[in-house]
Amino acid sequence: MDSNSTGLIHQTSSRKRLDHKQDTICIFGTGDFGRSLGMRLLKSGYPVVFGSRDPKNPTLLPSGAQVFSHTEALKTSKIIFLAVHRENYDFIPALSDLLDGKVLVDVSNNLKMNQYPESNAQYLSQLVPKTNVVKGFNTVSAWALQSGSLDASSQVFVCGDDNKSKQLVMDVARGMGLTPLDQGSLLAAEELENYPLQLFPMWRLPLTITAGLTVFFFIYCVVLQVIYSYVNKNVDHTYKIMISIPNHVFPIVSLILLGLVYLPGVIAAFLQLYRGTKYKRFPDWLDKWMLCRKQLGLISFAYGFLHIFYSLVKPLRYIFYWKQAQYVVSQVKQNTTSELEMTWVWRGDLFYALGILGFFSFCLLGVTSLPSVSNAMNWREFRFVQSKLGHVTLLLCTAHAAVLGWNKFLKPTTYKWGLPRGYMLSMVIPCIVLVLKLILILPCVDRMVTRIRQGWERREKYADKLNI
Amino acid sequence: MDSNSTGLIHQTSSRKRLDHKQDTICIFGTGDFGRSLGMRLLKSGYPVVFGSRDPKNPTLLPSGAQVFSHTEALKTSKIIFLAVHRENYDFIPALSDLLDGKVLVDVSNNLKMNQYPESNAQYLSQLVPKTNVVKGFNTVSAWALQSGSLDASSQVFVCGDDNKSKQLVMDVARGMGLTPLDQGSLLAAEELENYPLQLFPMWRLPLTITAGLTVFFFIYCVVLQVIYSYVNKNVDHTYKIMISIPNHVFPIVSLILLGLVYLPGVIAAFLQLYRGTKYKRFPDWLDKWMLCRKQLGLISFAYGFLHIFYSLVKPLRYIFYWKQAQYVVSQVKQNTTSELEMTWVWRGDLFYALGILGFFSFCLLGVTSLPSVSNAMNWREFRFVQSKLGHVTLLLCTAHAAVLGWNKFLKPTTYKWGLPRGYMLSMVIPCIVLVLKLILILPCVDRMVTRIRQGWERREKYADKLNI
Amino acid sequence: MDSNSTGLIHQTSSRKRLDHKQDTICIFGTGDFGRSLGMRLLKSGYPVVFGSRDPKNPTLLPSGAQVFSHTEALKTSKIIFLAVHRENYDFIPALSDLLDGKVLVDVSNNLKMNQYPESNAQYLSQLVPKTNVVKGFNTVSAWALQSGSLDASSQVFVCGDDNKSKQLVMDVARGMGLTPLDQGSLLAAEELENYPLQLFPMWRLPLTITAGLTVFFFIYCVVLQVIYSYVNKNVDHTYKIMISIPNHVFPIVSLILLGLVYLPGVIAAFLQLYRGTKYKRFPDWLDKWMLCRKQLGLISFAYGFLHIFYSLVKPLRYIFYWKQAQYVVSQVKQNTTSELEMTWVWRGDLFYALGILGFFSFCLLGVTSLPSVSNAMNWREFRFVQSKLGHVTLLLCTAHAAVLGWNKFLKPTTYKWGLPRGYMLSMVIPCIVLVLKLILILPCVDRMVTRIRQGWERREKYADKLNI
Repeated sequence: MDSNSTGLIHQTSSRKRLDHKQDTICIFGTGDFGRSLGMRLLKSGYPVVFGSRDPKNPTLLPSGAQVFSHTEALKTSKIIFLAVHRENYDFIPALSDLLDGKVLVDVSNNLKMNQYPESNAQYLSQLVPKTNVVKGFNTVSAWALQSGSLDASSQVFVCGDDNKSKQLVMDVARGMGLTPLDQGSLLAAEELENYPLQLFPMWRLPLTITAGLTVFFFIYCVVLQVIYSYVNKNVDHTYKIMISIPNHVFPIVSLILLGLVYLPGVIAAFLQLYRGTKYKRFPDWLDKWMLCRKQLGLISFAYGFLHIFYSLVKPLRYIFYWKQAQYVVSQVKQNTTSELEMTWVWRGDLFYALGILGFFSFCLLGVTSLPSVSNAMNWREFRFVQSKLGHVTLLLCTAHAAVLGWNKFLKPTTYKWGLPRGYMLSMVIPCIVLVLKLILILPCVDRMVTRIRQGWERREKYADKLNI
Repeated sequence: MDSNSTGLIHQTSSRKRLDHKQDTICIFGTGDFGRSLGMRLLKSGYPVVFGSRDPKNPTLLPSGAQVFSHTEALKTSKIIFLAVHRENYDFIPALSDLLDGKVLVDVSNNLKMNQYPESNAQYLSQLVPKTNVVKGFNTVSAWALQSGSLDASSQVFVCGDDNKSKQLVMDVARGMGLTPLDQGSLLAAEELENYPLQLFPMWRLPLTITAGLTVFFFIYCVVLQVIYSYVNKNVDHTYKIMISIPNHVFPIVSLILLGLVYLPGVIAAFLQLYRGTKYKRFPDWLDKWMLCRKQLGLISFAYGFLHIFYSLVKPLRYIFYWKQAQYVVSQVKQNTTSELEMTWVWRGDLFYALGILGFFSFCLLGVTSLPSVSNAMNWREFRFVQSKLGHVTLLLCTAHAAVLGWNKFLKPTTYKWGLPRGYMLSMVIPCIVLVLKLILILPCVDRMVTRIRQGWERREKYADKLNI
Repeated sequence: MDSNSTGLIHQTSSRKRLDHKQDTICIFGTGDFGRSLGMRLLKSGYPVVFGSRDPKNPTLLPSGAQVFSHTEALKTSKIIFLAVHRENYDFIPALSDLLDGKVLVDVSNNLKMNQYPESNAQYLSQLVPKTNVVKGFNTVSAWALQSGSLDASSQVFVCGDDNKSKQLVMDVARGMGLTPLDQGSLLAAEELENYPLQLFPMWRLPLTITAGLTVFFFIYCVVLQVIYSYVNKNVDHTYKIMISIPNHVFPIVSLILLGLVYLPGVIAAFLQLYRGTKYKRFPDWLDKWMLCRKQLGLISFAYGFLHIFYSLVKPLRYIFYWKQAQYVVSQVKQNTTSELEMTWVWRGDLFYALGILGFFSFCLLGVTSLPSVSNAMNWREFRFVQSKLGHVTLLLCTAHAAVLGWNKFLKPTTYKWGLPRGYMLSMVIPCIVLVLKLILILPCVDRMVTRIRQGWERREKYADKLNI
């Protein structure tokens, strides 16, 4: 390379770029998504051709893209993105011959879940059976395509029956700076098409349970704290529904939910013990229950969080301030000074210490359930945290409630209208879990469970001995 | 395979390894980065050859690497990493012929942003136009190369004009246990070279706004709470600048920033309503504003967080303790007991409940804006949380401020020197946002906005009908 | 394509699918993991063949999979997953000829770390030297294989000597919707096999240090606050061990740990200054220390978090309530009203403000150390936050402790039995760090350190001048 003038260099360099240029990508559909896709492809160095029924009136297409009729556009490219709603697929069969052997990427989404008997991509594949249909990009938003660049959050789920076509599409995704994730055959298209329409499906059941418990305990507390006072003492305690009663409901529901997180685990262990094998499927309800433990735990944590702040705000409240003043004034008037009750000191401090430690260990659980944190742990570490630390949290929180009860459990006066206090009810499930867990960690039982959980090994050897 | 002696096995196995060995990688530059790169490549099983001007005096090179002159080193390898500062590229053109057709990976960084008219990689590509220049690895630190192994955090951004060369380099990155991300053509090199020099560019504007608001409201509060008292009552309230005034400034600025997060969204909606289309670009200032909403929201959250703790610490403060004592003592002296004002109880409890619930829902917003959490949501869920929950947060926090005002808004005594209180000012933007949002969610308006947002569909059909 | 009847379409489409079908995968081992693997592979569209010693009695295999004898199974596939414990590898050498040239994926894990002299995969590679052994999938749990689908958390670490075989296995992993990460040659197998057995190895040392410090300061505080009172004043303060003493121990240990996070950094800088170069390795203890800074910091944060809540709970405690009443009653009796001590107001408010700001900046440090957040930052930003913000945190927390001390440092009465208070001891290391850091940021020293840290550049030029 002798000549060094900038002009020449530029010429050569631009020539070289043409030699190594990317494949042309064709996009059918000039809507929002099609345009965003085109813009991103152009930015990443792909020549882009739009196929349109009306190629002469293109509107708002990204500069640099060409617009042809569908037929002409098809000739320029091996990969065609179909950014068109399913209702408008009718023009596709006519292009069947031209599409033969090409890669057709279906990026469509529906307006409702399971709107059609089969997925759009499978339907498309039936319309043009000789074309390699790949489903993908439908989980990406047009907005993300337009804006994101050095952002790691742009996963592209891709599925399709033909591996080479899928690879081509995944290469294009990578070329656009996105992260393609292969989801297998076209059968997965249905899941992919439903995915962007989901609205927290895993949270439905836990939230319903929470709502039910919350309403029940709210009414329960209103009855015991407001109505009871009004009926028996003719005192109006309605103001309690603002802070005081919520601050009973939150911890009660939180503790019950936390119990519900760990109950299925111990039930499963006992089931395995009873069956003597791990190779039988759990009943469906147990499976479902186990799958929503994370959500139950997070809601429990949220309620615990609210409980903390509802409690901490107490000394700021006017009623607290006023009561304290009343207490002092009455002492002065009676000319007595109340003695420091050491039992109360111990009990109160124990109560708060247990509460804080329980909340702290709950926070650790919460942090380790963040996807990026749990990803950084191996399976053993994750189980250690979620199981060991989880049961410690449950123990601390149950003890926190038990100290609140102290000696009131046996006093008849505690039971207004014969009803136990809310926090007593909340301790039922956690106590069951803790007792069962205690049985499970007895050395002899633990050994048996462990053996069953590694059971596949024993059975394999057993089978070997029997048959060879 | 009959012979089973360990020696033989080892021999065979090592022979096999030589057959399948990785390509030799050449590194120019024996600085920090070059050495770290070499060390990592050697660890991953690549033979490494360093090219040096002074091959006879190698210092501190990783053991296992060979050192040759540049010319000799070039002959051993198809891929050359250029770990040299741009100022020292002068030896490259002389090697032009030897580099012909090879892959030259430019890993350089500059000391300042946009230091040169074109990116280092593009400059290099002009120096040796027949060489396939790939930019990459410059965003990785030498330290990460040396230490990381089972860590997921090592993304390698790569760009280049020649796809095959880029693929080769990305394969090497994968072979090193790193995660390559294709950033497109060499045009992206500039962005890649600027990336490691950035210092929170997206945070500049939001932080400036925050600083401005903070300073303004600090002075405003000092005027109203310290200077006013001093001038009118001759009381020294200077001590308030430690806790009391910051605890006014934080929530005020927090609420304003939260309003600023949701204002551009409603403006955009009204703009679309007015224009009757979504296909016109928003004005530049609106685009910029919308892009920094996340940062504004996070700062608002941080200030809210500070407000919570500044408030909770109140009962621990000596002044609070002292005032309470004064209050009781004065009651005793006057021999009166103050009545429990039920309005105050309700108002106070409502105030705190709204504050806590607002903070709680703000926390949910904060958690879901963590990259790993938002990645686990689809677009619909993310929008649901950030928009619905966001407006609920805004509503709760504004109501929190409104309850603080209560009936003071209309009392003339509230306005010292005719100035409204800080929290009143802070409610202006949130109230505007809430009123506008209220209009937008009226069924008739909402239907129109939705139709416009799905507008590309209508227009497409319209165009179709017109033209075919 | 004229005929459009659904029947035909389906026929064609299923024929097409057969043409493009995925390679058959063979799995040896019908245990838990083998079955889960098979299930996932089938779901992703791979034909699966199990190899079993007893092909006639298959139990619980996923429907759709075939079961053959080992020999027959081998003939169907190029890739064989070996889901068998190392103790049962004995049947492998007999299949040596059939395995020749094939890809054998070792997914085994051991029960203990470094159980065998070499990794299972290397051992396997010696048993069948002509087979391309790839290690992988052992870090994935059977449960994750069965359940996960659209989840990003399923990284698969893969290593092996033959690149093509490794690529094949990684393609299969991608086809299953997992994210393969190449870990280099088979030498890495040992690390991969140890990985799932680790239990927070990086946390051992920091936790041990924490435990030691916690125990020491707990005893120290008990001596000063409980035993001293009992011996000298015959007062029983045992109740303090519930809240009061932990609330001394947590902040003390937290501050010391925070000092320990930043001490190695300044030591390293001074070492470089002394040596005049960065090209000498740090002593081993310093390297180790630096590697556990993140863990030390997080524990420090956890203790700070506990300190916050232990402090905020104070006004809720009975003892606080009681003492305040006593204080007021005594005032009333003496018929005096205590004056507002302005020094106390300032000092108290300063104390709390510093504490809150320190905690706040500590929270920022904590959030930015979340993997997903730190990934979104470049190296410069991360260093900015962790270093600048870190030292600010240390400064704020140390000042918080210093204000607590105020003028007590010089009063002899502070030193019960001649011993300094715990918080005084906790300030030693942070003060050393801050003083050293202050020296380092002096312009002249800073310039020298920066020059040394960019030293490789200077040296290179120097070498060039000398030798060319």
